[in-house]
Amino acid sequence: MIIIVKQNYEKEQLDSLTNWIKSQNVKIDVSKGQNNLILGLVGDTSKIDIDLIRSLDIVEDVKRIQEPFKLANRKFHPQDTIVDVCGHKFGGNNFQFIAGPCSVESEKQIIGIAQAVKDAGANLLRGGAFKPRTSPYAFQGLKAEGLELLLKAKKETGMPIVTELMAEKYIDLFADVDVIQIGARNMQNFDLLKAVGKLNKPILLKRGLANTIQEWLMSAEYIMSEGNENVILCERGIRTFEPATRNTLDLSAIPLVQEMTHLPIIVDPSHASGIARLVEPMSLASVGAGSNGLIIEVHNDPPHALCDGAQSLRPEQFAEVVKKVDVMLPLVGKVRS
Amino acid sequence: MIIIVKQNYEKEQLDSLTNWIKSQNVKIDVSKGQNNLILGLVGDTSKIDIDLIRSLDIVEDVKRIQEPFKLANRKFHPQDTIVDVCGHKFGGNNFQFIAGPCSVESEKQIIGIAQAVKDAGANLLRGGAFKPRTSPYAFQGLKAEGLELLLKAKKETGMPIVTELMAEKYIDLFADVDVIQIGARNMQNFDLLKAVGKLNKPILLKRGLANTIQEWLMSAEYIMSEGNENVILCERGIRTFEPATRNTLDLSAIPLVQEMTHLPIIVDPSHASGIARLVEPMSLASVGAGSNGLIIEVHNDPPHALCDGAQSLRPEQFAEVVKKVDVMLPLVGKVRS
Amino acid sequence: MIIIVKQNYEKEQLDSLTNWIKSQNVKIDVSKGQNNLILGLVGDTSKIDIDLIRSLDIVEDVKRIQEPFKLANRKFHPQDTIVDVCGHKFGGNNFQFIAGPCSVESEKQIIGIAQAVKDAGANLLRGGAFKPRTSPYAFQGLKAEGLELLLKAKKETGMPIVTELMAEKYIDLFADVDVIQIGARNMQNFDLLKAVGKLNKPILLKRGLANTIQEWLMSAEYIMSEGNENVILCERGIRTFEPATRNTLDLSAIPLVQEMTHLPIIVDPSHASGIARLVEPMSLASVGAGSNGLIIEVHNDPPHALCDGAQSLRPEQFAEVVKKVDVMLPLVGKVRS
Amino acid sequence: MIIIVKQNYEKEQLDSLTNWIKSQNVKIDVSKGQNNLILGLVGDTSKIDIDLIRSLDIVEDVKRIQEPFKLANRKFHPQDTIVDVCGHKFGGNNFQFIAGPCSVESEKQIIGIAQAVKDAGANLLRGGAFKPRTSPYAFQGLKAEGLELLLKAKKETGMPIVTELMAEKYIDLFADVDVIQIGARNMQNFDLLKAVGKLNKPILLKRGLANTIQEWLMSAEYIMSEGNENVILCERGIRTFEPATRNTLDLSAIPLVQEMTHLPIIVDPSHASGIARLVEPMSLASVGAGSNGLIIEVHNDPPHALCDGAQSLRPEQFAEVVKKVDVMLPLVGKVRS
Repeated sequence: MIIIVKQNYEKEQLDSLTNWIKSQNVKIDVSKGQNNLILGLVGDTSKIDIDLIRSLDIVEDVKRIQEPFKLANRKFHPQDTIVDVCGHKFGGNNFQFIAGPCSVESEKQIIGIAQAVKDAGANLLRGGAFKPRTSPYAFQGLKAEGLELLLKAKKETGMPIVTELMAEKYIDLFADVDVIQIGARNMQNFDLLKAVGKLNKPILLKRGLANTIQEWLMSAEYIMSEGNENVILCERGIRTFEPATRNTLDLSAIPLVQEMTHLPIIVDPSHASGIARLVEPMSLASVGAGSNGLIIEVHNDPPHALCDGAQSLRPEQFAEVVKKVDVMLPLVGKVRS
Repeated sequence: MIIIVKQNYEKEQLDSLTNWIKSQNVKIDVSKGQNNLILGLVGDTSKIDIDLIRSLDIVEDVKRIQEPFKLANRKFHPQDTIVDVCGHKFGGNNFQFIAGPCSVESEKQIIGIAQAVKDAGANLLRGGAFKPRTSPYAFQGLKAEGLELLLKAKKETGMPIVTELMAEKYIDLFADVDVIQIGARNMQNFDLLKAVGKLNKPILLKRGLANTIQEWLMSAEYIMSEGNENVILCERGIRTFEPATRNTLDLSAIPLVQEMTHLPIIVDPSHASGIARLVEPMSLASVGAGSNGLIIEVHNDPPHALCDGAQSLRPEQFAEVVKKVDVMLPLVGKVRS
Repeated sequence: MIIIVKQNYEKEQLDSLTNWIKSQNVKIDVSKGQNNLILGLVGDTSKIDIDLIRSLDIVEDVKRIQEPFKLANRKFHPQDTIVDVCGHKFGGNNFQFIAGPCSVESEKQIIGIAQAVKDAGANLLRGGAFKPRTSPYAFQGLKAEGLELLLKAKKETGMPIVTELMAEKYIDLFADVDVIQIGARNMQNFDLLKAVGKLNKPILLKRGLANTIQEWLMSAEYIMSEGNENVILCERGIRTFEPATRNTLDLSAIPLVQEMTHLPIIVDPSHASGIARLVEPMSLASVGAGSNGLIIEVHNDPPHALCDGAQSLRPEQFAEVVKKVDVMLPLVGKVRS
Repeated sequence: MIIIVKQNYEKEQLDSLTNWIKSQNVKIDVSKGQNNLILGLVGDTSKIDIDLIRSLDIVEDVKRIQEPFKLANRKFHPQDTIVDVCGHKFGGNNFQFIAGPCSVESEKQIIGIAQAVKDAGANLLRGGAFKPRTSPYAFQGLKAEGLELLLKAKKETGMPIVTELMAEKYIDLFADVDVIQIGARNMQNFDLLKAVGKLNKPILLKRGLANTIQEWLMSAEYIMSEGNENVILCERGIRTFEPATRNTLDLSAIPLVQEMTHLPIIVDPSHASGIARLVEPMSLASVGAGSNGLIIEVHNDPPHALCDGAQSLRPEQFAEVVKKVDVMLPLVGKVRS
């Protein structure tokens, strides 16, 4: 952290500041220029509140040099983290397909789709049992019953399952779930992050609707700081002024995140746009951007789905996406595994 | 809800759609124009998923006429709701000041500030015991101990207290808290909304960083649909491209929200900008826009506060704001009560 | 400007950088800390491209300390600039009302409204002769004829006129216009800014739909750098994700801009929201935020206006706004002049 | 256009509305439901101001069914438009590379880069002679001299040239330019759009920083409505809250725009992110999304470029991008031509 001190500072104020910084176990490099005094903070500045420093009367400006995340930071952990889900690897040069319906609706439905997406080439099964819905009057998922149906589908097809946890109180129900998803609206539900940080299970962390990349990595850091380093990031679109798509898929985030962290990152092209016709082109775009995988909504009967039908593919459309992605993967040095 | 059917629809598809709509206990007004067939849905359409309808092959477009919230809707409840907190009224032509520190730090601190803001004219005391922080390494609040200190300050000064609940598991600790705050990051933590909806206690619902007014009112609806109609809305700034302020305070939301709902709405000018110098002008602006109150951060020693010092006023600055607001209130037909 | 050099820089690269900086007539304060080498650039760094510096291999990060605008900068010009328009003063503790129709439609219309807004208390008359319209098929204004009608209204009522210039080629037609408006869409039409910078006439510079405060002041700097220092800034709403209003009025910009520059700043509450009912509350809010004036759309027959009828007040509604603002001005230390 | 009339309308108001609509040569389908009266407007509604209709007292809501653009609309022109630039085809299944420096600096520089990008596989040469710069103190381009140097480079290499026109007054200087670029900041400079609409020359229309897809197509419509149908669209990133990239590349816009219009669309991955390292992954992502081409900044000596060095590739890096894209094109059914 670099602190630029105002020109007309009083010595007493400066001493008060430097003493406080030293009390935080951080050393100071002082450099006096012609116009400004600059303090370079050396050590672990992750606990220093940059807004607090900026509010001081004698401070002209402050700049963080070191990112405030450590466990998730590629600088301190240069190799790619590989998250293993029942033998399916996320990260590095591996590429995975997660597919399934928005909501679990019935045994017949979920087993039918599970078989269909497996046949089409998916590696993991997704499906919502607990559904975050804007309206209290909308269908909120089959909950515990939905989880049981997912586990049946896993037994039937052998596919590991990915499903969303919305509140800590349901965590025991997720004991046999293979990957726990934290949804976009809960990306900064810090108590929930800490709770899943105590598990020994891969966590799929979706980016919040209006969260910066740095905030997203800080949320990964919350999980990791409790001991669980199996975090898979998932870009799913950010909120912008554009009304034509539900969200704007931020694919530049893929290569940027890969520079900043060693964690795997995948893309959800279904929720980003909310338009089924865009899933194929945005899947190929995600592969081009360097994604480690895709999570895609598939439904055997889109118009009758209980939720989010607008963004679901039929199995044969999903199979088409898998086929095209598979041809493309060697170009970007990725393998299905 | 109005559904515009495509020109070349097949009768079978149309029948399938109209049958499904009727199965939702919603009637249909069909009107056949020269170019389009239009279906007007009559009845309670709040459970109908507009995205699902839009995804159907035969649908050109859909438009919701009725807002999807009911209990919070001024159309069905024209009078202003007055939320009473120990005799202090929120809503209608009433105006309230809530003030206090970002975080509760010690007994001496909180009682000192409580007394100071009371003397300056505040009606309620705010203070954070559980703090939502972007970094897992930042100070997270004194938690249960902080709540106890707030209750001591209440006892000492007689001021009702407002403080944030971050997770359902802490809810029993909040039994003696007067107003429970739901923070911006939890605005769509639906399980938490339902949990506080079961309480018989006023809820201060902050607007999410990137949530539309309609989503905000849907979150109020979540609370109200569980039986608790004592919801106070709080505008605290939205996320935009502008880097000069932490958030952009959306004051147009005040008169708009007052048209759409009967619930009281107040403004937090401290968190919106993150700059203490902007608190006074933005407080006066909020009063001009028609706010029912202000929640302001006040600290007796801003530069040494453990968090968010950049946005806190000193008590004498807060007193100045109260004085100016008090002169202005009659102009906008509001009274301190 | 502060340049933070990477730890493992090569001497040759550093020499190349420092030589280039010196060739720009900028001195360098070198300070070597334990972990980083920091270069403090001393002198006029306004011509140094911060993105170029950031792109260099040996640069960890760069931070601008000095804002890149000079003539508009309050640091170098602490007193408020007062822009005088035929005796009506903008800036300092002065407050002005500009009012009139969106478009000039006919002699009868413009003279009628001019008289009505004058009677209601407006100081200047606004009216569009050249209209920037999203669609090529929409009414584009009466152009030269509209300017003539405005000048007739000025002759009839004595009110100075404010109207928008859309392209340099029309500039001669504006010789008798009192204040030339540069619209939001032209805020970064740099050739047009330079052209009006060569005039000796007040310029009303609207903020662009998605421009930062710094970019806005850089556009003012474009005008001033050509010799014309009579710039009045106008906040008119920025583009955000919120669909309920056409734009989000950024009132925090008022006190911030007043810290950064000595130029006057006014608010356009009509275009910001696009909703006539919000004009009164947002006008009072603007006064609370410290605005130097308001520019308000008024129409004698809103539903039949040829454009933007949704946001226009009738004269009696405008008179009501003036009355309330006039009561409020003493509270914020402003006077009508 | 569908107009939903409020329940308690007065007959007189309705007659006034319907008469006005009929006076616009638009027919009305009236359909009376149980709760609402709905007016369906039949005919050319592109001149009807939707905001004006919405502002009427008796109107509950309005919805446009037909997009307000006609010449650019795929509904009325289903085949892809192919824009031919000296034999290089934009649109349909064709793919083009445009490459070159941000600014033209000298004869040696531009001819050197032109030759280098041609050797690497580029089809057209780009280079800025007139540069839109945020600061009046930054290098503004070599202007007329820069155009002459570009023409020399064209003569030397045979590559058609693409360069930006910033103001109508320079239009005669562009007589021998092959493709005129309209920059993001001028996307709604309507007089400039009309001026290039009168030329018989391909126009590269960049998307504005905060413009919706519909506004972008309306700007294309401005050009086409003057007679010039040779418009190539260019996505270059939109402004969002994310600070890690200069802009957020909106790749979902590619397939969406291709549904809405028959015009070709290409991507500028250099300006979007402002980071050279992201150019390769975002180029591959653009191809995956279905882009008809790429425009990429290439510099022989990035750190010494006079502007925007941060986002330029070296020729050998550009050659690498071309090689990877060329392998990928068959997968998406595109050919270099």
